[in-house]
Amino acid sequence: MSSEKNDAQKTKGVSRRSLLRMIGTVAGSTAMYNAMTELGFAQESGYAGPPKLGNVKAGTSVLILGAGIAGMVAAMELRDAGYKVQVLEYNNRPGGRNWTLRGGDTFTELGGIKQEVKFSPGQYFNPGPWRLPYHHQGILHYCSRLGVELEPFTQVNYNAWVHNTKANGGKPKRYREVMADFQGHVAELLNKTMQQKALDQQVTRQDREMLAEALRRWGALDQDMKYVKGRASARMRGALVNEGGGINSLPVYSDPDSLSNILSSGMWTALGRGQNFESQTPIFQPKGGMGNIGTAFGKALGNLIKYNCKVIDIHQDEKGVTATYIDTVRGGQPQKATADWCVCTIPATILSQIPMNVSAKKKAAINQLPYSASIKIGIEMKRRFWEEDDNIYGGMSYTDQPNQQIGYPQWGYFSKGPGVLLAAYTFDKEAYRFTSQTPEERIRHALDYGEKIHPGKYKANFASGVAVGWHRSPFTLGCGGRWTEEGRAKYYNDLCSLDGRIVLAGEHASRMAEWQEGSTLSALDAITRLHKRVMTA
Amino acid sequence: MSSEKNDAQKTKGVSRRSLLRMIGTVAGSTAMYNAMTELGFAQESGYAGPPKLGNVKAGTSVLILGAGIAGMVAAMELRDAGYKVQVLEYNNRPGGRNWTLRGGDTFTELGGIKQEVKFSPGQYFNPGPWRLPYHHQGILHYCSRLGVELEPFTQVNYNAWVHNTKANGGKPKRYREVMADFQGHVAELLNKTMQQKALDQQVTRQDREMLAEALRRWGALDQDMKYVKGRASARMRGALVNEGGGINSLPVYSDPDSLSNILSSGMWTALGRGQNFESQTPIFQPKGGMGNIGTAFGKALGNLIKYNCKVIDIHQDEKGVTATYIDTVRGGQPQKATADWCVCTIPATILSQIPMNVSAKKKAAINQLPYSASIKIGIEMKRRFWEEDDNIYGGMSYTDQPNQQIGYPQWGYFSKGPGVLLAAYTFDKEAYRFTSQTPEERIRHALDYGEKIHPGKYKANFASGVAVGWHRSPFTLGCGGRWTEEGRAKYYNDLCSLDGRIVLAGEHASRMAEWQEGSTLSALDAITRLHKRVMTA
Repeated sequence: MSSEKNDAQKTKGVSRRSLLRMIGTVAGSTAMYNAMTELGFAQESGYAGPPKLGNVKAGTSVLILGAGIAGMVAAMELRDAGYKVQVLEYNNRPGGRNWTLRGGDTFTELGGIKQEVKFSPGQYFNPGPWRLPYHHQGILHYCSRLGVELEPFTQVNYNAWVHNTKANGGKPKRYREVMADFQGHVAELLNKTMQQKALDQQVTRQDREMLAEALRRWGALDQDMKYVKGRASARMRGALVNEGGGINSLPVYSDPDSLSNILSSGMWTALGRGQNFESQTPIFQPKGGMGNIGTAFGKALGNLIKYNCKVIDIHQDEKGVTATYIDTVRGGQPQKATADWCVCTIPATILSQIPMNVSAKKKAAINQLPYSASIKIGIEMKRRFWEEDDNIYGGMSYTDQPNQQIGYPQWGYFSKGPGVLLAAYTFDKEAYRFTSQTPEERIRHALDYGEKIHPGKYKANFASGVAVGWHRSPFTLGCGGRWTEEGRAKYYNDLCSLDGRIVLAGEHASRMAEWQEGSTLSALDAITRLHKRVMTA
Repeated sequence: MSSEKNDAQKTKGVSRRSLLRMIGTVAGSTAMYNAMTELGFAQESGYAGPPKLGNVKAGTSVLILGAGIAGMVAAMELRDAGYKVQVLEYNNRPGGRNWTLRGGDTFTELGGIKQEVKFSPGQYFNPGPWRLPYHHQGILHYCSRLGVELEPFTQVNYNAWVHNTKANGGKPKRYREVMADFQGHVAELLNKTMQQKALDQQVTRQDREMLAEALRRWGALDQDMKYVKGRASARMRGALVNEGGGINSLPVYSDPDSLSNILSSGMWTALGRGQNFESQTPIFQPKGGMGNIGTAFGKALGNLIKYNCKVIDIHQDEKGVTATYIDTVRGGQPQKATADWCVCTIPATILSQIPMNVSAKKKAAINQLPYSASIKIGIEMKRRFWEEDDNIYGGMSYTDQPNQQIGYPQWGYFSKGPGVLLAAYTFDKEAYRFTSQTPEERIRHALDYGEKIHPGKYKANFASGVAVGWHRSPFTLGCGGRWTEEGRAKYYNDLCSLDGRIVLAGEHASRMAEWQEGSTLSALDAITRLHKRVMTA
């Protein structure tokens, strides 16, 4: 493709987006929506297709620091545009937080604690990202390009458990029961209010009739607009014994809980997660483990990536950028890698500790960015008791215990043999509490919590486990960028801006922090701006 | 397994179930729930495990009419219990309504209209059942037993379209937009009512605070408890341009629609389907087509099934049951098949036309049962424009046009090349309207409707189609049993009861009509009662 054509497309792309923003500002969002439709713009993603960089002068080089998603997206696109690319990576594998643990893998955290993964052959655990929403079109594009096969991920399992230590005698309830009871009572309340004419100001008579019908359906109300034990509520909450076949097949209905119990128990907080934009179906996961994306990128980039490189200094001058690094395996004297330009995807937690001559503003932006703490614990169970005994296939159970949730494996449904549970996934205070313990203690506690939800099954089926606390991972020192609104307003543009010959990229340099899509879009934006600078330099 | 042990288990099983019903009746459902938990009873299904029939006297024979799911479940279990089994089937294949159409298949409906399926290799369409809810443990058991591999089915696609010819200028809206706008306005209304103290009688002060917080989340309300354009509502409805990475990555929010528009447009009727017990995630489908279940059953039963047999008479006397049938391929004189007992799974629509000496009550029950009419149209498209252009992966779009919905293929996501859409799925009046036309006209109309939802794409990518109207299928004469409450009260037990040496089974002889689980549970109940009679005869 000629660079002339590419430039035309780039200009067209940029001006189209600007045009849309202008229409949005001036004429309102409906006009913008229509304009977007006319222009064939994909409205549900910040992603607007792979970048059209055009060819660069032969020999122009870019040094990329970090072979996570952002670094490898940048490397692949820059390579394709004709740049000479080299990537330095701290780990002995590509992917960064995009990572899957399998039997035989090891993980050494800060302080030197080393865990060996002892899962059975074929079993795996994603300690980092685990979900790809349908609207994350950037990372999905690279999955498609790299041939990474995807399969559906179930966010909400209506038959999974909602558990609260202080409610219902500590016994879990099915998600569908909690949901139906909440919706049923709220619908009944609102309809009652409407009948008492409290809404006559806000809702027309005709709308009120339709609203009542909508509430009846949404709340599983009976013909008297009551949420009570019976056929109507069973259509949503299920029955004790469902309808069957032949003689003696009548259902046995169950008693709804009261609204007050649902509210005071805190069980309602488990509801609605699947309705958030980021959790709306469909969601996907790579078949065989999230780490397959990183592995496929690494394979595609081949020897452009140099592993086991710990960067200790980054220096730029008018001619180029030099990174000084130590080979963490072979040791020896610090080595240097030099290029005309640099895309740095090292997390701010680590970058803030590496000497780098950038502006004071960028330094401040890097230094101020807080990172979240989080932990994920994976436990292999000898058999899939959640499927066999509880009819739970995928999705999550929620609890008010420190482990927060149990995620069930989203593959191999109905198979006999083992399965790996996400036995804990929690942030910040609770994550620190877990990592104050040894890995063995973390797993033991996760087993204690799980036993409350699957009594008699959880501990009895324990095979092995691994606990990854991201704030104790030497290659991230945190889970991801935790921007505050104030921090974002003050520092975000300084963090992202091109500084001489250096540009930063990664989830922390995006408005979708802690998502692989953020890493992807950040990288695409960074290299687009970098390329523009290169072409006009 | 000795018959003694089997009998003990059977007795235990029966008495356990009876015990539970007694507890439920006397002590209430909470007590029953606890008792069920104690007894290890699977509470979410009418299915209580495979039947434990025990061995029968060698040579005892059963004639089974129909090799659909009910007939084949009965055949397999009776065979395993030692019965001599023969199955007569009208079609030249096993499965009945469990059926998948592939390129090269043909379907001849009443009146002799023959359709040839012209799908590309690997493409398929399920004209009958297409979903297996997680709680349909009976049919799921047989999938597992027969090695039929299952994969997830997405019921609700938040990014699919909701379309109403009379609303929004005929332009479809995203499901997530309609849902968010409905919930947002309802939450705002209810909270406002609460603030005006209209609910002070019904809800305590403490509960009101939590309810407000629950409404804020559920309704995506902002900090002022308003549902308006902005960050909060975008968390559920999505934005025109989502947040991105790097510089220039601010989102562009969209304007919510008014509650009045959502209600008067009828778009709200598309909501909430995924919350019904039968549509709650997870749901499964056999990989490669629903018909794989029927095929696997057929393979397992081998030459116990005789195909191309049109039953024209069923007669019982004190010694046994004789079915008279015609070989629809070879023709010739009517032939006879005789056995000690008979399980008849022929649909009531057809059975009502076959002479059979059963009680007047059973005759009346068979004759009165109405069947639903329905049609499914499958259309192969040359490329997956719904994925590539609209980011719709699986799930359904809804419309007020006669085709009612468009179902997107639930496999092969992100693949290039063709895909088969469910282009129409509708019942009764609209189904009759479709079948009053030739197959070509049905498909042409389905294309017209689809073009409104995917303008410029739908007709342009048409490859081929097939339209199966179940009320015109010669082996069912309807989609399934459509029991009324009155009919059920008056006739259901008469339909299901053992009449001399004949017992009926099938979805129509269950309380889960039109579901394969109904067929399965009906068959299990029928053969359990039949076996009991045999053992005491």
